Amino acid sequence: MTPWTRKLRMGMIGGGQGAFIGGVHRMAAAVDGQIELVAGCFSRDFENTKKTGAELYLDPARCYRSYEEMAEAEAKLPADTRIDFVSIVTPNKAHFGPAKAFLEAGFHVVCDKPMTYSLDEAKQLEQIVQKTGLVFALTHNYTGYPMVREARELFQSGAMGTVRKVLVEYVQEFLAAPLEKEGMKQAVWRTDPAQSGVGGTIGDIGTHAANLLEYITSDPIAEICAEKSTFLPGRVLDEDVNVLLRLKSGGKGMLAACQVAIGEENALRIKIYGSEGALMWEQENPNYLMVARMGEPLRRHTRGSGFASKPAQDVTRLPSGHPEGFIEAFATIYMEAAAAIRAFIDGTPMKSSEYRFPTVHDGVRGLEFITKAVESSDAGASWVKLAP
Amino acid sequence: MTPWTRKLRMGMIGGGQGAFIGGVHRMAAAVDGQIELVAGCFSRDFENTKKTGAELYLDPARCYRSYEEMAEAEAKLPADTRIDFVSIVTPNKAHFGPAKAFLEAGFHVVCDKPMTYSLDEAKQLEQIVQKTGLVFALTHNYTGYPMVREARELFQSGAMGTVRKVLVEYVQEFLAAPLEKEGMKQAVWRTDPAQSGVGGTIGDIGTHAANLLEYITSDPIAEICAEKSTFLPGRVLDEDVNVLLRLKSGGKGMLAACQVAIGEENALRIKIYGSEGALMWEQENPNYLMVARMGEPLRRHTRGSGFASKPAQDVTRLPSGHPEGFIEAFATIYMEAAAAIRAFIDGTPMKSSEYRFPTVHDGVRGLEFITKAVESSDAGASWVKLAP
Amino acid sequence: MTPWTRKLRMGMIGGGQGAFIGGVHRMAAAVDGQIELVAGCFSRDFENTKKTGAELYLDPARCYRSYEEMAEAEAKLPADTRIDFVSIVTPNKAHFGPAKAFLEAGFHVVCDKPMTYSLDEAKQLEQIVQKTGLVFALTHNYTGYPMVREARELFQSGAMGTVRKVLVEYVQEFLAAPLEKEGMKQAVWRTDPAQSGVGGTIGDIGTHAANLLEYITSDPIAEICAEKSTFLPGRVLDEDVNVLLRLKSGGKGMLAACQVAIGEENALRIKIYGSEGALMWEQENPNYLMVARMGEPLRRHTRGSGFASKPAQDVTRLPSGHPEGFIEAFATIYMEAAAAIRAFIDGTPMKSSEYRFPTVHDGVRGLEFITKAVESSDAGASWVKLAP
Amino acid sequence: MTPWTRKLRMGMIGGGQGAFIGGVHRMAAAVDGQIELVAGCFSRDFENTKKTGAELYLDPARCYRSYEEMAEAEAKLPADTRIDFVSIVTPNKAHFGPAKAFLEAGFHVVCDKPMTYSLDEAKQLEQIVQKTGLVFALTHNYTGYPMVREARELFQSGAMGTVRKVLVEYVQEFLAAPLEKEGMKQAVWRTDPAQSGVGGTIGDIGTHAANLLEYITSDPIAEICAEKSTFLPGRVLDEDVNVLLRLKSGGKGMLAACQVAIGEENALRIKIYGSEGALMWEQENPNYLMVARMGEPLRRHTRGSGFASKPAQDVTRLPSGHPEGFIEAFATIYMEAAAAIRAFIDGTPMKSSEYRFPTVHDGVRGLEFITKAVESSDAGASWVKLAP
Repeated sequence: MTPWTRKLRMGMIGGGQGAFIGGVHRMAAAVDGQIELVAGCFSRDFENTKKTGAELYLDPARCYRSYEEMAEAEAKLPADTRIDFVSIVTPNKAHFGPAKAFLEAGFHVVCDKPMTYSLDEAKQLEQIVQKTGLVFALTHNYTGYPMVREARELFQSGAMGTVRKVLVEYVQEFLAAPLEKEGMKQAVWRTDPAQSGVGGTIGDIGTHAANLLEYITSDPIAEICAEKSTFLPGRVLDEDVNVLLRLKSGGKGMLAACQVAIGEENALRIKIYGSEGALMWEQENPNYLMVARMGEPLRRHTRGSGFASKPAQDVTRLPSGHPEGFIEAFATIYMEAAAAIRAFIDGTPMKSSEYRFPTVHDGVRGLEFITKAVESSDAGASWVKLAP
Repeated sequence: MTPWTRKLRMGMIGGGQGAFIGGVHRMAAAVDGQIELVAGCFSRDFENTKKTGAELYLDPARCYRSYEEMAEAEAKLPADTRIDFVSIVTPNKAHFGPAKAFLEAGFHVVCDKPMTYSLDEAKQLEQIVQKTGLVFALTHNYTGYPMVREARELFQSGAMGTVRKVLVEYVQEFLAAPLEKEGMKQAVWRTDPAQSGVGGTIGDIGTHAANLLEYITSDPIAEICAEKSTFLPGRVLDEDVNVLLRLKSGGKGMLAACQVAIGEENALRIKIYGSEGALMWEQENPNYLMVARMGEPLRRHTRGSGFASKPAQDVTRLPSGHPEGFIEAFATIYMEAAAAIRAFIDGTPMKSSEYRFPTVHDGVRGLEFITKAVESSDAGASWVKLAP
Repeated sequence: MTPWTRKLRMGMIGGGQGAFIGGVHRMAAAVDGQIELVAGCFSRDFENTKKTGAELYLDPARCYRSYEEMAEAEAKLPADTRIDFVSIVTPNKAHFGPAKAFLEAGFHVVCDKPMTYSLDEAKQLEQIVQKTGLVFALTHNYTGYPMVREARELFQSGAMGTVRKVLVEYVQEFLAAPLEKEGMKQAVWRTDPAQSGVGGTIGDIGTHAANLLEYITSDPIAEICAEKSTFLPGRVLDEDVNVLLRLKSGGKGMLAACQVAIGEENALRIKIYGSEGALMWEQENPNYLMVARMGEPLRRHTRGSGFASKPAQDVTRLPSGHPEGFIEAFATIYMEAAAAIRAFIDGTPMKSSEYRFPTVHDGVRGLEFITKAVESSDAGASWVKLAP
Repeated sequence: MTPWTRKLRMGMIGGGQGAFIGGVHRMAAAVDGQIELVAGCFSRDFENTKKTGAELYLDPARCYRSYEEMAEAEAKLPADTRIDFVSIVTPNKAHFGPAKAFLEAGFHVVCDKPMTYSLDEAKQLEQIVQKTGLVFALTHNYTGYPMVREARELFQSGAMGTVRKVLVEYVQEFLAAPLEKEGMKQAVWRTDPAQSGVGGTIGDIGTHAANLLEYITSDPIAEICAEKSTFLPGRVLDEDVNVLLRLKSGGKGMLAACQVAIGEENALRIKIYGSEGALMWEQENPNYLMVARMGEPLRRHTRGSGFASKPAQDVTRLPSGHPEGFIEAFATIYMEAAAAIRAFIDGTPMKSSEYRFPTVHDGVRGLEFITKAVESSDAGASWVKLAP
């Protein structure tokens, strides 16, 4: 049985009862029928792990007390039984440990973002991935939307010219009330520097915005001037950040992220003005990409239409007008990681340059962004350079 | 092992290579991790079935030559192996046969719409379902959207008053070119009365529009005056229909369906004006429901928000701003059918009045609508009464 | 002094204190600086007329007790003093009298819609206009929007092909509460058949919808099947109407008008699907026209852009992105009527086929529509033919 | 005759053939029927002035060779003949001279923005206005939109709490092509520092964005960090600017202005997130204001509705759904200036704190913003304080 004639076997770290993103990863992994969940350590609390495993119809023998135990035990299972890869969906602080453990045990990894707790961890992880040659996919899930692929294609083909200006914003109401005081698990760890790292909103959503910009334009952020703010009493991490951007190409931009923006749900919006054309995309209405060319009517590119580009079509499941959403975009990262993993197993690994999903390098870049944004803000919002 | 502690086992009729809706059913069944596909007869062409089965990682022994063979063989398998239900995703002409066969073999059924080829078949099927007491879910999938549930709740609670006027339209470009001449499978059977029945667009999408209206308002269409049209040369079935509506409550309305509407993708839109308030919803942007009350600002209800109603929350997977789409709405029908099937297996069957998913009765109603719309149009677009 | 080197002089019938549309006509006439208001009979109540005249800085000598007096007196004034035309902005019942009087006294006329109280009056008026050869403009003001001109051009040029289906709706909340019982002047006369005629909503807004459809497509409504409804107790005129349409070309359509539609402000919306393309326009967001062609991205045509058609540019005052609104569209009717009046005075009258503004023929057509819609509805919503 | 029983008489400086904004001022002054244009010096070229005057039906005797001549001549005319105020619609460089001349000759002034060529001129002008006590209105016309008044009221009433974050952007395609090389008059002077001053886009549209933010929130911009850019070869003034903002209240924000943004027409958009609620408004769709409160559905406030605030109603001409546009908003500045001028003439001058229209103080503030933004950018985009 080749890796192409069976489902891939997934394990999961994190995502126990009370968590949010773990369930999303499971739906994303399940929807295309290519992956089955067979093992997990869903919580530090083994009772939670057992209950979660039961809810997910797992074999209790493959519900583990710790990720270390799991990596070790799975590695000892027969090749036709053990997991092919692990999905890490814990808070930031708990990404590096399992990622290192599973990679070193020979397993491929899908990891939530930001990739690690610190830039230093990120660089270590990058070395481990390079050394092992295993597949590592980072779930900057917004890159999975077909219309984001369309946008990227429009820049890669040259149709948009070079970037003049980018306006990217990611705003949420999520933390406008002090939910962490009510024990809301998502808010507790996100507002705790011991679990999140030096960035609050910068890391949680600011990195998505920065990644999206670079993913679409292939034009790296070269310098930033960032100001972070905290409004609710008692909080220590940033809830809000405004960033001036200088791109490598000479283009300029602004990035705003805020988690105390009343009325906003999950509003990641990007407008990119190039020398030949411009694009506008909004995550909350993701099936459309507005495309402008000078002196012409604005055009609405739609997911699933006959005129969509090949890279967009490649990650499209349904015809136009049948909206795909967040789960499908997320699933695309899994689908593409699965293809890379299968190629690896099959002895014909892809080059990382062939990956369309975000990689460990994007993860390092995210930590670079967080670290430098905090550094800039702490210096009174002055300019700092990002490592190339 | 109870039906609650294992995944349900699904078989599928139809959905082989070249089909569209079968894949949607499979993704919908998979996403929530509650159902596994284990058997199928995907095509009249056994080669296609075998290939499709292989692509879906099925046991070749459970890929069948015909639905009759499959119903018989599955019924003989041990209780812990055989399918729990079958999903029927063939063209209209081929719904009744397998539905009857599997119901009579003791299997629950999920069936695509319109339910049957003719009203007579629909009524026979209704009797079989009633006699067997088995679960029968009809995939009027648009009823699975959380904001459709919100809309229904706003009418059921009385907040919108009684219906004054409904404007519902379902328009597509899909058949604006003669795709059936190019052999496009979806177009071939939809334009062929031998496979579709007496209604073309009326049946394919008109029934969705009629069902949505009745699902939200619980106010049955009592009389209709319908005019169907065919524009492309060589076609015999309607591509377009306009219908005046009289509702049981005394409310009035209009229903438009068209599959030669250039520029439209899958635009099912409904506006319902009641005596106390009004609702507007669009399938292509399904996460929002606009709600009006006299003299007040229009409000945007959103899926996944804290203020959504319980019926909407019950079928919501993600927080607001993380768009759910077509697959998730479709999955809700499967999720609810699965709960009904599990309750049945567990010996505590639900009453059909407890079902929130569309049932065999909705299926009969759909064929009644098709039949009477064609009758009305054939009589020069004169008024006809629908059976209550 | 030629008619081209001075402002035109306007008189007004109706539009006294408490009225609505008179003020709109005055703003529309004023904005382009081509017309000055110099005389009026604003009300049957002479005190109201005098007060209104004073507010408008008119010479008290030219505020008249009755339209008859005004027509007679103005006709006796010197040619360089007397009005060039009169604007009639009274309720429907009071259109015919002054229109006839002023035409017969040699004055051009701008008249609000529906043109008259009855179809018979409309036909009489048509004959008077033809006999006198004077300019008669009917303020179906929505035809003055640049993007409506763009739409018309797209049909006249053949770019959209022939009409397949039209969906036009005009819905308002305006009469959802019984405002006439509170003495609200606009509601009082609109709900009173003695002032409005046989049509309520059909006449007040239904005629706008029908006119817009014919204006854009040049494809006359040939047959209708209409159902009118009244929901609020005590009302006698229709508040709501649904109409099936057969166009001369063979195209089909639906027209909905409703003034008890909670949540709707002044929502005139039209979608026209042709054999080569399709258009969507909404009056509440009038600076945009969505244009579709088969298999291509939807395009947003905008008022004032470089790519707008000449007929749209001809009636555009501001660059794109600087929204023009209701008053400007209304003003376009005045601007075009003024050009026709000046040409007449100058001895080089335009042919009525050169008029882009709605004329007395459109007025007859409007009354034909009202009369036949009521006739159809009274016959149980059966089909009736419209005079060609 | 009191100033309340006659139209006000306006003179105009600038706005000859080939100009754009002069025509807008004339339409804005005309639409409400309160002001008549009676004199002008429309161009440095007297032939142009004479032609323009003729087109506007002016007395040739009141078409002047220079603003100096006009100020002097008009001052000598009888009180019941001479202009009441002058409207200055020239390029920036030519604002100060006429403003000073007419104020010193005793005339009120309406002036386009930015108010002057330099901050120094602005401060001088402020002193002249204060000394003379005359009315000076600055046409930051976007403040005239009813929904901007609604927004301001929502902040002034405390309903939105204190500002946390502002995102304001003003983007246009206007200068994306080198139109100044084709002699397009609007582009020529805007790209010429000798006529525009130190700011290009910053002054032309950046000041509108800054003014709008301060007008709505009453929360002054205290510090800025600005980066300006120029992309097209041969240009010297900025075409683009990105600005980080610190507000006096402690709120933060970003302001983007760009005139080389392909696909954008005249997109002034503002989102203000406060501690109690949030607002979103877009100039291109100005009749709506989206209002958010924590945990509640987004509400659409509409111009002309029964639920609009009094300050919004005060500047509303039409019921909701009948869109008002750019000219009407502009006209509101004239209408309010006219009321102030009449009160002055009548001997009961308003206090400047009662003015709702932008004043000479806003003009100084605009030049402060331009000057400091350029200073910040020239210092490598570092922080500078604005005068309070």
